[in-house]
Amino acid sequence: MLTYDMSNRGRLARYDYLYRCVKEDILRGRLGSGERLPSKRALARHLQVSVVTVENAYAQLEAEGYLHSEERRGYFVSTVEIRTPAPGVAKAEEKEEQQWLLDFRGGGSGTQGFPFSVWAKLMRRVLTQEGTRLLRPVPHSGVPRLREAIARHLYQFRGITAAPEQIVVGAGTEYLYNLLVQLLGRERVYGVEDPGYSKAARIYRLNGAETVPVTVDAQGTPPEEVERARVQVLHISPNHQFPTGAVTPIARRQYLLHWAEKGKGRYMIEDDYDSEFRFTGRPIPALKSIDDGGRVIYMNTFSRSLAPSLRISYMVLPTGLLEEYRNKLGFYSCTVPAIEQDTLASFLEEGYFDAHISRMRVYYRSRRDEVLESVRKSPLAGRCRILGEEAGLHFLLELDTAKGDGELEQLAERKGIRLSFLTQYQLQPGAAPEHTLVVNYPGIDTRNLPQALERLAELL
Amino acid sequence: MLTYDMSNRGRLARYDYLYRCVKEDILRGRLGSGERLPSKRALARHLQVSVVTVENAYAQLEAEGYLHSEERRGYFVSTVEIRTPAPGVAKAEEKEEQQWLLDFRGGGSGTQGFPFSVWAKLMRRVLTQEGTRLLRPVPHSGVPRLREAIARHLYQFRGITAAPEQIVVGAGTEYLYNLLVQLLGRERVYGVEDPGYSKAARIYRLNGAETVPVTVDAQGTPPEEVERARVQVLHISPNHQFPTGAVTPIARRQYLLHWAEKGKGRYMIEDDYDSEFRFTGRPIPALKSIDDGGRVIYMNTFSRSLAPSLRISYMVLPTGLLEEYRNKLGFYSCTVPAIEQDTLASFLEEGYFDAHISRMRVYYRSRRDEVLESVRKSPLAGRCRILGEEAGLHFLLELDTAKGDGELEQLAERKGIRLSFLTQYQLQPGAAPEHTLVVNYPGIDTRNLPQALERLAELL
Repeated sequence: MLTYDMSNRGRLARYDYLYRCVKEDILRGRLGSGERLPSKRALARHLQVSVVTVENAYAQLEAEGYLHSEERRGYFVSTVEIRTPAPGVAKAEEKEEQQWLLDFRGGGSGTQGFPFSVWAKLMRRVLTQEGTRLLRPVPHSGVPRLREAIARHLYQFRGITAAPEQIVVGAGTEYLYNLLVQLLGRERVYGVEDPGYSKAARIYRLNGAETVPVTVDAQGTPPEEVERARVQVLHISPNHQFPTGAVTPIARRQYLLHWAEKGKGRYMIEDDYDSEFRFTGRPIPALKSIDDGGRVIYMNTFSRSLAPSLRISYMVLPTGLLEEYRNKLGFYSCTVPAIEQDTLASFLEEGYFDAHISRMRVYYRSRRDEVLESVRKSPLAGRCRILGEEAGLHFLLELDTAKGDGELEQLAERKGIRLSFLTQYQLQPGAAPEHTLVVNYPGIDTRNLPQALERLAELL
Repeated sequence: MLTYDMSNRGRLARYDYLYRCVKEDILRGRLGSGERLPSKRALARHLQVSVVTVENAYAQLEAEGYLHSEERRGYFVSTVEIRTPAPGVAKAEEKEEQQWLLDFRGGGSGTQGFPFSVWAKLMRRVLTQEGTRLLRPVPHSGVPRLREAIARHLYQFRGITAAPEQIVVGAGTEYLYNLLVQLLGRERVYGVEDPGYSKAARIYRLNGAETVPVTVDAQGTPPEEVERARVQVLHISPNHQFPTGAVTPIARRQYLLHWAEKGKGRYMIEDDYDSEFRFTGRPIPALKSIDDGGRVIYMNTFSRSLAPSLRISYMVLPTGLLEEYRNKLGFYSCTVPAIEQDTLASFLEEGYFDAHISRMRVYYRSRRDEVLESVRKSPLAGRCRILGEEAGLHFLLELDTAKGDGELEQLAERKGIRLSFLTQYQLQPGAAPEHTLVVNYPGIDTRNLPQALERLAELL
């Protein structure tokens, strides 16, 4: 029987420690390929842990391919190459695996609350009803039925009138950013929000386009800054700026539209990444909804509102760009499999998406309240200010401290806490204020939160 | 009841004509949203066509989103926007829709023979067994289990020894080409085969990389041409060049490897797009299998051997590139949904892929023989020579004619035949010989073939 000293696990969760022990044994060849593992119940008894602990450990090992299960027979060790990876690779992998008491950088939306059984049901139905039609090539912009469903959704929820022809479905917004540089050209100057979502800037740069930061203020992106920086394509999130949370008011939106219409080939890429989650008042209509001049490329993703592994995003192109898009990029195959597109179309058409979003809004609000409550009850309470909690999947925590962000980050890491500062999202020094934590509350383990906040308060 | 004059259908298949009539009525608003269509049986009786004809027409309309079916209730008109699209768009759409008596450009591998029921069964099982684990983010290079299965497959069938860490899974080779330019840099000179697979060249150019054609000969790409053209990254298909069908012999492979090893930062991208289908002798081992210097990036796709709508391709990176890949591109999310990856992993692990390929080899061989037989029996027989029929999903037909390819193409189009010439794949004039048809035989409608060949013979 596998024997591990569970008291050696330090700060790790029991299941996590067990998972690491078994993985190590597989990677070192102590557990051979095809070997059968003890039953969950037997191992739980042996190690004096709960069955759920063993279950979670096995599930993780199975998900990562170390184990496989056979119905009614149990878990078996999979064939895993026992080798020493290149040193560079190993280092990077280890870094990813570090465990935290609390990780403020943990991904935004998790997969909690996603109605997997509905999704699976619809997918099964699509498999049955569509059958081999699913194997045909998909039109390059996506399955028509899905594009129609998205168009209806945009009209109802974001105030956007778009024909299905304007919608391009792709495997993630990252992929769509790549397409956009190819459509608009890499010789243009791309402006990105500072502080901001760094992947967009990274991808524009990787595509060889000059990418300049535009410092945001409390109202989002100032048009005069855009003008000054000679930006031609502006990537913005006017409805809920990440990470500052700024909402761009209507007057400035109109200024931005004027800016875009004034110059030839000027465009705005509206990244509407978490518009679904607004807890106070009505959702802010998208910039695209008042884009009469056809200067806004709207972009959103289902990976965030549904599940990260789904990889379905889309953009809405202005009609004026359609012909160029078709000529330049129409040869690309659509990157999302037909079955996912059909399933998502049904999910939208039959109201499951709306229901999911409503439910998640309630769920996130209560998660947010729980985290806010913990903060207010913690020793940190008197020494911080909560900002931008009315929308989206993160809020800000302005800390009352003399310590620099870098110092605080290091001190916290030693205490097992990974902090996320506004300054970490800045592209130029000084673009973001110091001492401001970005709290991605859906990713936070609330069980560890009180202890972590206590440790954090001690550090200030 | 819907009434259409089926005798007006010209060269169109009955189902196709019916599909167009109904679609037209929906788009013009003559059939309104929500309206119920006559049952298949009733409409078939009314129009005096077979039930299968109506079935196929409805199926197509449903696949395209014009109709939806409700269990036991029949077909209903979906909500379709009735609008006049921009003229440019409309023109392009119409062009795509043109019907041919015979289309030599028709896609290579179709979806015939794909064991959809097995795939659907595995997918259902994955849904049940993996459950919500499918919603977790996928590692950026792909699901470990799939990468392991691909590594095993490569070892067994292509002679390639690669660790799963070297494998990157992505939504189509087109996507991977984009990644490669970002990895290797757009300031390098990319060499592409001429004549060749034009999408690769197009994508490298769209990425702003200098892309130069290298004229291929009967043995594939001549190393001295590569040297002369100052290529740094060479995109080749040494195992079955498209479209010439050339196989690069071992001596030249070694030359190419020497070429790559001689210069810093030189790489070859081995596009192994249809290596599965070789009808004479054993498969040619991949260039990657003798790449001791780590200069070959191997690439292949499941979209071709399984179904175009699946969008799963992969590449094998040399270990020397792994760290750079991770640093530069490791932030990208994997573009293939977890469920497709898990399903494909099972499909590979449980031997279904091998069985499918064996079956398809037999199927394609018989399709090929059928098309070859038609050619040999046609009036074209004495006036053409068949080339490169021993491998892959296309062969060449050298025509005995004095007419230029452009003229012949136009003449044939007027007779309802869309030809595909070797010269259409050339990037520089003179790179490919004239009068040589590329026959993608899996896409050919053999029922129309004799008539089409007759018409073609008249044109020569």
